[in-house]
Amino acid sequence: MMKVSVKTLREGLKAVKAVVEARNTIPILANVVIRSTPGQAVLIATDLDVMVEKTIDLEEPGSNRAMDFSVQAATLQSIAAKLPSEGVATIEADGNSGIAIKCGRARFKLPTLPTDDFPMLVRADWDAQWEQDGASLVAMIEAVRFAISTEETRYYLNGIYWHVPGESACQFAAATDGHQLARFHHDVPDGAEGMPGIIVSRKTVKVLADLLEEEGGTVDVAVAASRCRFDLGSTVLTAKTVDGTFPDYTRVIPAANQIDAWFDPAVLAEAVDRVLVIQSDKTRVIAMDFTRDKVTLRVTCPEKGMASEEVPIELTGADITIGFNGRYLLDVLARLKGGEGTRARVLLGDSAAPSLWQQSDEARALYVLMPLRV
Amino acid sequence: MMKVSVKTLREGLKAVKAVVEARNTIPILANVVIRSTPGQAVLIATDLDVMVEKTIDLEEPGSNRAMDFSVQAATLQSIAAKLPSEGVATIEADGNSGIAIKCGRARFKLPTLPTDDFPMLVRADWDAQWEQDGASLVAMIEAVRFAISTEETRYYLNGIYWHVPGESACQFAAATDGHQLARFHHDVPDGAEGMPGIIVSRKTVKVLADLLEEEGGTVDVAVAASRCRFDLGSTVLTAKTVDGTFPDYTRVIPAANQIDAWFDPAVLAEAVDRVLVIQSDKTRVIAMDFTRDKVTLRVTCPEKGMASEEVPIELTGADITIGFNGRYLLDVLARLKGGEGTRARVLLGDSAAPSLWQQSDEARALYVLMPLRV
Repeated sequence: MMKVSVKTLREGLKAVKAVVEARNTIPILANVVIRSTPGQAVLIATDLDVMVEKTIDLEEPGSNRAMDFSVQAATLQSIAAKLPSEGVATIEADGNSGIAIKCGRARFKLPTLPTDDFPMLVRADWDAQWEQDGASLVAMIEAVRFAISTEETRYYLNGIYWHVPGESACQFAAATDGHQLARFHHDVPDGAEGMPGIIVSRKTVKVLADLLEEEGGTVDVAVAASRCRFDLGSTVLTAKTVDGTFPDYTRVIPAANQIDAWFDPAVLAEAVDRVLVIQSDKTRVIAMDFTRDKVTLRVTCPEKGMASEEVPIELTGADITIGFNGRYLLDVLARLKGGEGTRARVLLGDSAAPSLWQQSDEARALYVLMPLRV
Repeated sequence: MMKVSVKTLREGLKAVKAVVEARNTIPILANVVIRSTPGQAVLIATDLDVMVEKTIDLEEPGSNRAMDFSVQAATLQSIAAKLPSEGVATIEADGNSGIAIKCGRARFKLPTLPTDDFPMLVRADWDAQWEQDGASLVAMIEAVRFAISTEETRYYLNGIYWHVPGESACQFAAATDGHQLARFHHDVPDGAEGMPGIIVSRKTVKVLADLLEEEGGTVDVAVAASRCRFDLGSTVLTAKTVDGTFPDYTRVIPAANQIDAWFDPAVLAEAVDRVLVIQSDKTRVIAMDFTRDKVTLRVTCPEKGMASEEVPIELTGADITIGFNGRYLLDVLARLKGGEGTRARVLLGDSAAPSLWQQSDEARALYVLMPLRV
């Protein structure tokens, strides 16, 4: 038997539920494992690639007995969501293959599956372990995750490449889908110097970001070539890394772009958003005419019409006309700070060369956008 | 040329946009007609069955000239949404088949279609005209609209039957899908005595409800057998009525149900919502065991388990077990007031007989739910 407050149960299930896929061919993957002692319970869910273990406190430890079962995560989550917030639920065994849940006048009986067959992600021998501030992990993820490719055939791009280049004093995170590239760096945390470069999958990134939003503080990170683990305190995320080789993305980052334009990213983003009203479903190309003191955005669509808008800039170098995918451009601009005179820069080569977007030279994040023909 | 504030343009387009269907085989139906004088403009949209005309005020009447054109409603709405809220847009002709919009540094050119071919819904010779309080129309709509059938083959059930039975001092509104029935009544407004019974289509109901939310006050109603019109002041809604005969629904309303149970609708609704956690996709049947002082809700699903909950009631008459579709039951309960000791009643016959749900005997709304076998 275990007694757990409805609020605690909700929090616990929220943490593990993000891992459970809505459609599962293996029934037990739809389940959450619950292992309790008199005082605590661990909730475990996995999709074979990512596993989350969440420890929650139980009520009235004196009256509880150890339990070990698995039930459908979605059903248990719905029940927890509908029970009164201030309630305490009692969960006990109901025969060999079920549990009974009581809370107030409500009663539920749910079928269980044995936990012996539950596919736990075993931990690896770690190649590097270190402590890292949760906020720095959040900054890293938010800077680059939008550029992760969704193309399944290029599975080695379906994640964030997290690495410390040999001898570098910086830890890098990079993501790209071939059209855009985002890179973030900061000082190597103590202990991470020898980390192997790993590709952290899109799903791991999502689950980690969600967990960090709930539980801040310091994270114990452990990395091996095939596994990574993030221990947030009451929540532990273990994941397989993407088994592939991330391409040498540094060659894409332009080093010799001569045209230098400073602008307010908030103002430019609003203008881009506006001219994108005129777009067909097929293309979202925006033509940009850069001149000394302004850039003119232009979008034309045969059926829908035409839109244009001027945005003030400060340009050093030759005038240039270059095209970009408006959606990608908005993704990048959303990550640059603007408003109240805060500016960012873009470095351009020619109309066919990659463009480099940054808050400033010293910024931790840089963005590369490939141009489109206009 | 016309100058219009962005806010006013947004409000105008919001009023007419609900009528425009997202997919149109007739291109001009995706358009909004705009007819302006120096001081005002009328925006008109239709789907051939429902038409909305919205009058908006223009800025700087002295500088405006009359215009008459139609443009894609969705595009114009997107533009208005993205322009700065405090801005004023200038719209002028751009050749014979286009308009130019300017606002701040933004410029748009949109193709237009001539308005001669625009299919206006002509007004009928009205059989009855009266003034009605907007709030009473809202009460009527909200009480019964959930029961409107979506079955296209029974098109005569795809609306609210609005009528004054011969000699009656009451105006009635009824909707049913064969499983549930909702009826609302109030005193006949002056002038509505001779109204023909009409079926107001689901879409007309939706558009009217949305318009009433924006623009309250008194509504001028006009009705003929094939048309109805609601004049809210700056907005006029004209619609075709559903061409069919609404069945004699009064036979379904049980008059001799002997089992009388009083309950708190809010408490019962919460319990129903909770036990519905255990349900298959196919059926949402809830078994209800009514006894003297409580009703026990039961749901069983082979794969998912079992849920039950007791709710206090006060019953007069014999004990009874009866089943209902949980979703329909929630729809009805949501329309009954509960909490803080406020109660409602249900009158039951036998487990196969229609049930009658009401706030009280004097309530303007009544609900009939057909039982399911349990």
